[in-house]
Amino acid sequence: MKQLLVDKSSGDSIKVKISNIVFGSEDKIIISGPCSVEDYENMIKIARKLKRLGVHMIRGGAFKPRTSPYDFQGLQEEGLKILKQVGCEVQLPVVTEIMDTRDIEMVSGYSDMLQVGSRNMYNYSLLKELGRSKVPVLLKRGMSATLSEWLYAAEYILSFGNPNVVLCERGIRTFETYTRNTLDLNSVAVLKQKYRLPVIVDPSHGTGMKELVPNMCLASIAAGADGLIIESHINPDNAVSDARQTISISSLEKIISKVNKLKEIY
Amino acid sequence: MKQLLVDKSSGDSIKVKISNIVFGSEDKIIISGPCSVEDYENMIKIARKLKRLGVHMIRGGAFKPRTSPYDFQGLQEEGLKILKQVGCEVQLPVVTEIMDTRDIEMVSGYSDMLQVGSRNMYNYSLLKELGRSKVPVLLKRGMSATLSEWLYAAEYILSFGNPNVVLCERGIRTFETYTRNTLDLNSVAVLKQKYRLPVIVDPSHGTGMKELVPNMCLASIAAGADGLIIESHINPDNAVSDARQTISISSLEKIISKVNKLKEIY
Amino acid sequence: MKQLLVDKSSGDSIKVKISNIVFGSEDKIIISGPCSVEDYENMIKIARKLKRLGVHMIRGGAFKPRTSPYDFQGLQEEGLKILKQVGCEVQLPVVTEIMDTRDIEMVSGYSDMLQVGSRNMYNYSLLKELGRSKVPVLLKRGMSATLSEWLYAAEYILSFGNPNVVLCERGIRTFETYTRNTLDLNSVAVLKQKYRLPVIVDPSHGTGMKELVPNMCLASIAAGADGLIIESHINPDNAVSDARQTISISSLEKIISKVNKLKEIY
Amino acid sequence: MKQLLVDKSSGDSIKVKISNIVFGSEDKIIISGPCSVEDYENMIKIARKLKRLGVHMIRGGAFKPRTSPYDFQGLQEEGLKILKQVGCEVQLPVVTEIMDTRDIEMVSGYSDMLQVGSRNMYNYSLLKELGRSKVPVLLKRGMSATLSEWLYAAEYILSFGNPNVVLCERGIRTFETYTRNTLDLNSVAVLKQKYRLPVIVDPSHGTGMKELVPNMCLASIAAGADGLIIESHINPDNAVSDARQTISISSLEKIISKVNKLKEIY
Repeated sequence: MKQLLVDKSSGDSIKVKISNIVFGSEDKIIISGPCSVEDYENMIKIARKLKRLGVHMIRGGAFKPRTSPYDFQGLQEEGLKILKQVGCEVQLPVVTEIMDTRDIEMVSGYSDMLQVGSRNMYNYSLLKELGRSKVPVLLKRGMSATLSEWLYAAEYILSFGNPNVVLCERGIRTFETYTRNTLDLNSVAVLKQKYRLPVIVDPSHGTGMKELVPNMCLASIAAGADGLIIESHINPDNAVSDARQTISISSLEKIISKVNKLKEIY
Repeated sequence: MKQLLVDKSSGDSIKVKISNIVFGSEDKIIISGPCSVEDYENMIKIARKLKRLGVHMIRGGAFKPRTSPYDFQGLQEEGLKILKQVGCEVQLPVVTEIMDTRDIEMVSGYSDMLQVGSRNMYNYSLLKELGRSKVPVLLKRGMSATLSEWLYAAEYILSFGNPNVVLCERGIRTFETYTRNTLDLNSVAVLKQKYRLPVIVDPSHGTGMKELVPNMCLASIAAGADGLIIESHINPDNAVSDARQTISISSLEKIISKVNKLKEIY
Repeated sequence: MKQLLVDKSSGDSIKVKISNIVFGSEDKIIISGPCSVEDYENMIKIARKLKRLGVHMIRGGAFKPRTSPYDFQGLQEEGLKILKQVGCEVQLPVVTEIMDTRDIEMVSGYSDMLQVGSRNMYNYSLLKELGRSKVPVLLKRGMSATLSEWLYAAEYILSFGNPNVVLCERGIRTFETYTRNTLDLNSVAVLKQKYRLPVIVDPSHGTGMKELVPNMCLASIAAGADGLIIESHINPDNAVSDARQTISISSLEKIISKVNKLKEIY
Repeated sequence: MKQLLVDKSSGDSIKVKISNIVFGSEDKIIISGPCSVEDYENMIKIARKLKRLGVHMIRGGAFKPRTSPYDFQGLQEEGLKILKQVGCEVQLPVVTEIMDTRDIEMVSGYSDMLQVGSRNMYNYSLLKELGRSKVPVLLKRGMSATLSEWLYAAEYILSFGNPNVVLCERGIRTFETYTRNTLDLNSVAVLKQKYRLPVIVDPSHGTGMKELVPNMCLASIAAGADGLIIESHINPDNAVSDARQTISISSLEKIISKVNKLKEIY
């Protein structure tokens, strides 16, 4: 195999900076927010609470890749406007999903980081355009992508000129149906030891069960992750999507407190 | 679950017509050709031989979704021109892969059917645009897509107005590494019994081993498939991609002869 | 890797004979019967009907490996007595499952062939004792066993002195939940081309859905299988176990008729 | 589903005591030692070092379930004698694998706890006999067992009268081949929250790579595990089996020190 840009031997560990946040530093970056942007009122309430807890970045979906064409597809550009406004008000950067090469310029105008979701990890046209764009990218692992394929997906972005890639482990598809996915923390240990990119973990999708999220946040950090992306809501049971895996603000507060203690051990 | 357009209860079985070919009829449709369009000389030689064997349609990749950005990415529009010219000369329709919403109009100009590859089955932006376009679509199963997700991907296309969808089982990703994928012929039996769309099988990707292709062609037809898509080459060992799973023209001839006998049993 | 006794290069294809049946010959061997032996009356009724259809061998479980300790565990030795008596009356050999090294002698007294079920494929103590015993063994593939592990399990039996091993593909565990298992017919093609042992297929467990069994029987034979093992019952809906995947006698009759036509093609 | 003995609603959390060790208590139990018992000299050297580090229990295989019949099958009873002698000398309890119902009495004579390996998790004959025996059992998860099947395997032992069961997550089989298995720490979080039995983790088999073991030990404890079982050797590169995943004594020392700090957080 050709030496890749993502290989440790190709250079120093890559740090990805977004305003005053640095992925791949000593800090454990916490990204949180609702699955979908629903409306301005809910979004600003959530964002203010997250800001107070010390969350570093706000997430919220506006373009939603849904299995069924009949499910809610997100507020689209209207949602992006809300997300941007809220981010400005609470002074936190925002991340949202990109699904189409034609939307990169538009979505970049509203967002500090673009997320490539699990379903688009193999969308090489999208990866190439993101490589040309230089915007920070949060690259989720495909739901059954091997570590090698995931690294090659990152390599697409890097090789087209954009080194600002943060990987996100979000669980893989296995025979086990008790949990929504099987969170593969082995992958975090491998990536931190042998490759150059920062890695965060999404225990919300990685478990699909809100009651497992706290334990798996701690396990992720203990495995070496540089941060976490966690679905939260002021009223999780009423979230328009992913209610089953969305935690409350008070649950998030406890997680952040434990993560901060855990950091000390390393 | 809402009743879907793909459900048997929503209407008659769907037949997809391309010139004088009908997917979902009594005929077992054979699509063949090389993994990648390489040059005009090779392509026309292959096409003439395929025509003589009674193959119904020519395949050839011009935009190639490759795991590594450093691998051959296909001849792109140049490849499409060759494919179209060859199709005209031997009077056979052609199918090729589409990877980007921005390319649909251009690629449709050169091709009679657009293939959505395994890696783009969850690319909902692409599916919606294909739904609006009315061009016949060959929708491959995602490499770890459940039957339900695959049917919903088809539903995206149908619900946006395009009923011309042929499904293609191409093997799923499992723990087994002896073969490239595990060909899931259960899926063919399910689709033919409970859903409305035609289904063909790709035993080349489904096995990844040329020596297994003949057996698995027959097994696919016996399971109920409406046709086959098979990678072939006049000189398989020299194919620029997928050489390991590409069969010779003489091997294809024997397969077609056995498929014709097998048809009689049903 | 050391050359194995199961490798084609180690000798001729192995034929396994049980009275006048030969696994690995031109004949396609059909084994059928209920999941569990229930009582003499039902068993003899089923057996007489199977005999009339030309079925070669009767199956029936007396020791049942059930996921829950609270489910019916089989009639045990009482069931074996019924099985043997019924086999004698209709003059067909019988196969039943063995689960414990301590039972080999006893169960062999009642049965012509011992089945190692999917859950015991890695039970190396059992495999070694069966190797010493010389009794014909039907070795099912473990539910997530690789081809290589399955072949090594057979090698255990052969290397301890017993060449009378018939392999049985019965579906593997994958992410797909629509069907009970994913029937891996690639494995049949591999085994017939590269290894020495006869291979049959169990489409009842391989699909878990009675309506898929006919298609998958034909697909199995088309893939190259030497035979089939099919759960059947005179009253499938009332079967005490596996009712969902058990076919009726009339459905079996149609399958056998099509299998006989299919044989002609090869 | 019937209420099970393993369900939280059936009673208090179960604590399993072996001499002065309590699985399921505040203590994080560390079990360590070589994959196979090799000879007395090595075993006593390792055991003395482990004792000094505060390891609670010694592991060492005497009956080895090996994929190939031609691989080293363990020292068998001779190995058990060494294990017992060494345990007595350093005053630590020992655990070793049981593979055959016929050996339970003999192996129990040498060992304080019996391990049911991954390959025998579905060996219901063995589970029933262990249920009757009352000896503490370390029940590893089958390599592709669902959580539900694993819990039912434990239920077999409990329902036959033996509550002394400790579960061990050891990684599951997935499509990922970079690591030997995918360590499923979601399972640990589920088991601690919803079921009664203690759970430990085996990161040696769960990763198959010694360099990942330290990170995954910490992740396991952070996910809620009651302990760890870790393959170690005074000279890992020369271990007769599993050398690739066996860590050195000095690596183990660092792990134990971090685990002790991590405990404080909870």
